[in-house]
Amino acid sequence: MSCAVPITIRPARRDDVAAIVAMLADDRLGRGRERVEEPLPESYYAAFDALQRSPHIHLVVAVEAAGAVAGCLQLCVLPGLSSQGASRALIEDVRVRCDLRGQRIGEQLLHWAIGQARDSGCKLVELFTHHSRVDAQRFYARLGFQPSHVGMTLKL
Amino acid sequence: MSCAVPITIRPARRDDVAAIVAMLADDRLGRGRERVEEPLPESYYAAFDALQRSPHIHLVVAVEAAGAVAGCLQLCVLPGLSSQGASRALIEDVRVRCDLRGQRIGEQLLHWAIGQARDSGCKLVELFTHHSRVDAQRFYARLGFQPSHVGMTLKL
Repeated sequence: MSCAVPITIRPARRDDVAAIVAMLADDRLGRGRERVEEPLPESYYAAFDALQRSPHIHLVVAVEAAGAVAGCLQLCVLPGLSSQGASRALIEDVRVRCDLRGQRIGEQLLHWAIGQARDSGCKLVELFTHHSRVDAQRFYARLGFQPSHVGMTLKL
Repeated sequence: MSCAVPITIRPARRDDVAAIVAMLADDRLGRGRERVEEPLPESYYAAFDALQRSPHIHLVVAVEAAGAVAGCLQLCVLPGLSSQGASRALIEDVRVRCDLRGQRIGEQLLHWAIGQARDSGCKLVELFTHHSRVDAQRFYARLGFQPSHVGMTLKL
């Protein structure tokens, strides 16, 4: 059995953006979507600033004892009328640094997000995983998620 | 062929909440989740007020010529770092009044949401449909959506 690496989960800062983008890009599906350059395209920082202004969105990082970014997750707590006006939580962009996989960092990030959703009064947590991410689906199922919905997407 | 009923799409107002909740409740899956009472539980109005304060969320209604609410849709435009910092659009709570189905009101609501997502710089529109909503999946597929993802949910 793998054991849990001690990590801290904290809000992402502007100087974490490059480490987060590196994780987003280090991925079979993410590779073609990102631009890991020095300096990073300004659009990433503009998005980070928009996230900072949002009352609904928490972008967090998991940080190793030495301070390096080991994982990330974005949680959106979205108000809505359905289910008697209960908010819903949407989890996106879950990533763990390649060399640290299998050490339960993703699990700790998810537990943080589920706790935060509960504390915010959400009755439901939702996430999309690409059909081809079978390992991710197994991971989420272990945490109690059901494959109850079809996630439909339209590229613009 | 059914033809399009002339509707107007506008932001939902506080006095639309009862009509929206009636549509949310008039649904096989929604029936057990909502409370259609007179007066409506205060939680619906609290959620409406939270939606009004949100810079990311548009709750809109489709309105018939005579002014009655015929449908609704919630669009969330969510910033995020992935895809070079492009926002994503999430569509939720799409409903058309029971007696007006098959008249392309849902299609007009979706076209509005897709246009709004494009104008907001989104590269992707996402939505969840329950596995059992086969008609809804066909409807979204006709509009160009792909069943690319598994939508996983956790009830709290």
